[in-house]
Amino acid sequence: MMRIDLNSDLGEGFGPWEMGDDAAMLDVVTSASIACGGHAGDPDTMFNTLRMAAERGVTIGAHPGYADRTGFGRRIIPMSPPEIARMVAAQVGALMGLANLAGTQVRYVKPHGALGNLAADDRSVAEAILTAVPEGMAVLAISGTELELAARAAGVETFSEIFADRTYQPDGRLVPRAHADAVLHDAGEAADRLMAFLETGRMPVIGGKPIQLAAQSICVHGDSPGALQMAQMIRVRMEAAGVSLAPFLT
Amino acid sequence: MMRIDLNSDLGEGFGPWEMGDDAAMLDVVTSASIACGGHAGDPDTMFNTLRMAAERGVTIGAHPGYADRTGFGRRIIPMSPPEIARMVAAQVGALMGLANLAGTQVRYVKPHGALGNLAADDRSVAEAILTAVPEGMAVLAISGTELELAARAAGVETFSEIFADRTYQPDGRLVPRAHADAVLHDAGEAADRLMAFLETGRMPVIGGKPIQLAAQSICVHGDSPGALQMAQMIRVRMEAAGVSLAPFLT
Amino acid sequence: MMRIDLNSDLGEGFGPWEMGDDAAMLDVVTSASIACGGHAGDPDTMFNTLRMAAERGVTIGAHPGYADRTGFGRRIIPMSPPEIARMVAAQVGALMGLANLAGTQVRYVKPHGALGNLAADDRSVAEAILTAVPEGMAVLAISGTELELAARAAGVETFSEIFADRTYQPDGRLVPRAHADAVLHDAGEAADRLMAFLETGRMPVIGGKPIQLAAQSICVHGDSPGALQMAQMIRVRMEAAGVSLAPFLT
Amino acid sequence: MMRIDLNSDLGEGFGPWEMGDDAAMLDVVTSASIACGGHAGDPDTMFNTLRMAAERGVTIGAHPGYADRTGFGRRIIPMSPPEIARMVAAQVGALMGLANLAGTQVRYVKPHGALGNLAADDRSVAEAILTAVPEGMAVLAISGTELELAARAAGVETFSEIFADRTYQPDGRLVPRAHADAVLHDAGEAADRLMAFLETGRMPVIGGKPIQLAAQSICVHGDSPGALQMAQMIRVRMEAAGVSLAPFLT
Repeated sequence: MMRIDLNSDLGEGFGPWEMGDDAAMLDVVTSASIACGGHAGDPDTMFNTLRMAAERGVTIGAHPGYADRTGFGRRIIPMSPPEIARMVAAQVGALMGLANLAGTQVRYVKPHGALGNLAADDRSVAEAILTAVPEGMAVLAISGTELELAARAAGVETFSEIFADRTYQPDGRLVPRAHADAVLHDAGEAADRLMAFLETGRMPVIGGKPIQLAAQSICVHGDSPGALQMAQMIRVRMEAAGVSLAPFLT
Repeated sequence: MMRIDLNSDLGEGFGPWEMGDDAAMLDVVTSASIACGGHAGDPDTMFNTLRMAAERGVTIGAHPGYADRTGFGRRIIPMSPPEIARMVAAQVGALMGLANLAGTQVRYVKPHGALGNLAADDRSVAEAILTAVPEGMAVLAISGTELELAARAAGVETFSEIFADRTYQPDGRLVPRAHADAVLHDAGEAADRLMAFLETGRMPVIGGKPIQLAAQSICVHGDSPGALQMAQMIRVRMEAAGVSLAPFLT
Repeated sequence: MMRIDLNSDLGEGFGPWEMGDDAAMLDVVTSASIACGGHAGDPDTMFNTLRMAAERGVTIGAHPGYADRTGFGRRIIPMSPPEIARMVAAQVGALMGLANLAGTQVRYVKPHGALGNLAADDRSVAEAILTAVPEGMAVLAISGTELELAARAAGVETFSEIFADRTYQPDGRLVPRAHADAVLHDAGEAADRLMAFLETGRMPVIGGKPIQLAAQSICVHGDSPGALQMAQMIRVRMEAAGVSLAPFLT
Repeated sequence: MMRIDLNSDLGEGFGPWEMGDDAAMLDVVTSASIACGGHAGDPDTMFNTLRMAAERGVTIGAHPGYADRTGFGRRIIPMSPPEIARMVAAQVGALMGLANLAGTQVRYVKPHGALGNLAADDRSVAEAILTAVPEGMAVLAISGTELELAARAAGVETFSEIFADRTYQPDGRLVPRAHADAVLHDAGEAADRLMAFLETGRMPVIGGKPIQLAAQSICVHGDSPGALQMAQMIRVRMEAAGVSLAPFLT
């Protein structure tokens, strides 16, 4: 029986502001990558999302990003690798402190936005992030990236993700958001593509033949309109096809 | 042989801005209460102070405060006890994450400024803070306060501090800063008073007879002018008198 | 023919986060009180709301608040009156700078949240805010408050507002939010009450006889669910009754 | 009689943290470029520096920078030209609001740090900043840069500055800080070089013949150790040589 994890970036509100519907999304996903107060999140939003995840048995990961709320962690802030390591260590630690208060645990680290994209391409950034991953915690990397390779090389437990709503290039990288066909908006189309990938291990790409990708998790973004519907559709289709949705860490 | 700890609030810079001379103060004190990114501190300043403390064998504590840099944690920000618990848990966690990266450990929690003052008087705030102290970590409380009582009642390892440069009232509380004689500026006078306290267990007060106070640590503020000189003078005088300066936790 | 202004607090997003639907609300109101980067707002959100208001001929006011995004300006941050004056001057100036860039103008100041509530009760806070209102700019105060009295006494052009969705006490103050009947949720009921007020000059209160209140503007909160529907209902009902909705400043 | 302005970047403290000695520097310079709450400054520090400058008859400029306190405005934050224009408009407006409260006026705009460097090289950034300079306000640009050219082309009153403590390349640009000889530390040497420049209109460069530079102002950085001594030395030497130190705008 095929099996895969469904993860979403959650806890991305701040103060009075909400981002997506964490409670509803936590009813669908099997892992939650929770913002750590850098690009989003404050102690109350982080705690509430941690508690809701724990109540539902959803596996919890830390989702650190550039400490740039205005830019939502989507801009590269010029920082040296040691500065990045310290930023990530502080953010993951903050989430761990709140998880402890909520009676639960952080199991993996997945870098957010511009930090995640940089770690996908830049080995020194990937390695800096890894120095900040506490012992016993895993890494969730974008499939086929420097972060994935560096984590394996460092002996850190590593899982890989593909994106439900993003299209791929022949080299395995995401089609940049600037392109017209970078994002899939139709939940059915996204589900079809994922089912095909699960059956064949090959991902369709724009401008080439399907490519081999390894993945233990599917990421559905929590902050885009229609995200919840897409996640629900994927879950329904997978379960109908006999795919078991389960966290990569339990 | 008498023995006592000397602690100072450190790591209170932020970005390009410095506060006091951490390196010099760490050569004098035996415990360092390090800011956690709330009232002061960012991952780089926190990491550097952690590393300097570890190199000198200085015991490390977390010094969480209201997340109010403009007010340096000296203003009471209206928050419920659960909100305070989450804020403290996130800050202590952030420092623990950085301590882990620096290869060292956080051993105690001491609340800063307005949060510390509120915890001295308000049992529910004291108890909220205690819920955010990770298992195995101690609390450093102002001697004779609600935080001290609540920590003992909760079975948390508790140490108490007196202030080198602040005068006391007959009820054991500090003379408020607004008063003309609230702060001792003369290092020799401060040292004399501490020596007398260590010999008798009684602290002189303004407008009354000396009172009994328990203390395992003397706090010298790191952010006031002359702080370093006062700390050095106290250390010299104590060592000359055969008092052993040593951390309350090793 | 009766005439009144309809104002709403807008521009209260921040970075990636939205608050209410400014574009839709600006189609309904006649004045917009725009956040200034303190409790909410950043240069981009402020600029966009300014431009949308200008395009629709909606009169623009500054809506300064405590520089406390996490608390959305709803917590009292301990500050002296001169500190409050400087905070307000900087925020109103920032909005004026952006209004200039957008080719429009800021016409009045209305303090937000906890700052507005404090200015309603505390004359020294009201007077501090007034020192920060640039010459030629008006003040929009809650009807019957210290801010209204202080502004009149200072010779500042003063307008008063009542709340569409809040109930009143016999002394003219709002029923505190903690009370069960503090907030009107039914748009029709709110509209009925406002129509009665416009016809009689008397506002129904909880636990007493209707009271005399002066008002040149009705405030509909932009950040509560149903706010847009309530504003639209009020507009429709007023226009049907021959009440002219027009800004107090043109 | 030769005449030149001496300007320094001031008001660069934040909350409890100080940067340089504004009061002493304001006794030496003739123009003050004051931080606007972006890279540094809060309403109280801005107001105090404004008032001290006004008391001494020092001409006041706005010194906007990237809203990045941790990086002190020295990191390029990825922003589009319209985003930069809005950021600058809000910051200059904030300082104008505070100047109004202090009974004084902002006369020019000089971008700070990474923003100033980008505006020196990138015409679209220079032009974006210019759209945010209020009518009637001048620009102080680094001599020989795109900002200088764009300001002249836009019909904005433009003044140019050279740096007291930085060395030059044959193309008129500053030797990057990474180079060993980028910064002059000796006040006498800096004064000698400036005197030679004032007498000849030519600036010595590293690795070439002296170049022609136009300048109405000399910048002494306020935040480097020895800055005050350098400013004082320059003032003394210039006055001894009969050079009149006076603001470029009065």
